[in-house]
Amino acid sequence: MLPAPLKRLIAALSRLPGVGEKTATRYAFHLMNQPEYVAGELAQALTSFREELHFCPRCHHLAELQPAPATGTISSSSDLSGLCDICKNPRRDSRRICVIESVQDLIALEKTGEWDGVYHVLHGSLSPMRGVGPDQLRCASLIARVDAGGVDEVILATNADVEGEATALYLRRLVGTKAAVSRIATGVPMGGELEYLDRGTLGRALRDRRS
Amino acid sequence: MLPAPLKRLIAALSRLPGVGEKTATRYAFHLMNQPEYVAGELAQALTSFREELHFCPRCHHLAELQPAPATGTISSSSDLSGLCDICKNPRRDSRRICVIESVQDLIALEKTGEWDGVYHVLHGSLSPMRGVGPDQLRCASLIARVDAGGVDEVILATNADVEGEATALYLRRLVGTKAAVSRIATGVPMGGELEYLDRGTLGRALRDRRS
Repeated sequence: MLPAPLKRLIAALSRLPGVGEKTATRYAFHLMNQPEYVAGELAQALTSFREELHFCPRCHHLAELQPAPATGTISSSSDLSGLCDICKNPRRDSRRICVIESVQDLIALEKTGEWDGVYHVLHGSLSPMRGVGPDQLRCASLIARVDAGGVDEVILATNADVEGEATALYLRRLVGTKAAVSRIATGVPMGGELEYLDRGTLGRALRDRRS
Repeated sequence: MLPAPLKRLIAALSRLPGVGEKTATRYAFHLMNQPEYVAGELAQALTSFREELHFCPRCHHLAELQPAPATGTISSSSDLSGLCDICKNPRRDSRRICVIESVQDLIALEKTGEWDGVYHVLHGSLSPMRGVGPDQLRCASLIARVDAGGVDEVILATNADVEGEATALYLRRLVGTKAAVSRIATGVPMGGELEYLDRGTLGRALRDRRS
């Protein structure tokens, strides 16, 4: 019914999360009816984004790969070129580390505007069910950061689900002797109505009440 | 907050219809966490689909561009190479033409499995408001097809909205003297409940009642 090049485009678009054949077909026809640069720029961004990105060697957040320095330049010992924007920023307090599961969590926290420390992205959570142990996460480098000194506080901001709690528990045991460790608060979300909250959240909010 | 290459990808994905920044970010992170070929194949499909497609010179449906024939080949007068799959198909009745507004409409009709004639895609509908006159549509080539003879029936299957009706009216006047012209039926959709139908549809269904 549809020519092969369009079928290939629809199949490739169907791999996006939550996109079925119907939505992919809509996207494909839209792209066909738009000026050529719309599809072209998307193709260009898709081709290059992976090569132009790497993970920050300190906190494992995403960072833009910088062009190699000119030959003859002597890189100083405080070379920041490989680090992400947050680790490079002198106004961020590098003595306080917020530990999170993913880059998406980092973005959510940055949007609050409440955190001026730095981060450590684990890239996952402990899950024996899915075969994810500490070696699959960036745990060792967190411990190395704390061991290297200069860290006062570690906030464990993993998810409030079973795996996130287990990860927090595990890290608290490893880091707790070397820095002050805290866990983000759980409780009633802002605007939440008690009537519709699950028992777990409500019970926890009651237990963790503040005076 | 996000490195520039990812921001560019999110901006390019945000141009898809109904996709805002949030969905685009979700798509971008998904592509980053997938094997490299997922983004690669999408980029490839986006780059090539336009070059590999053209419009069928007879019915203006999409057709895959065939590689040029080897030099020395004498193309016969019944050369079908530029035509779409439907016009090329000898089992389709080329004496009956169904006129539609868009390729998407063609796909919807093909999915019914009810039509074994051929099509004519207008690529739009008459709309003085949007400055679309007969010259912006593929009207002249429809009249040329009918004038060339061999056409018994023309079904006007433009949308049942004001512009589609106006287009059908216009074409009926031009083609009506040369072939049998009909309009697709309007009425209560299958599974439709009278209670929830608009007055226009219900009134029309009453007037067009069959004995």
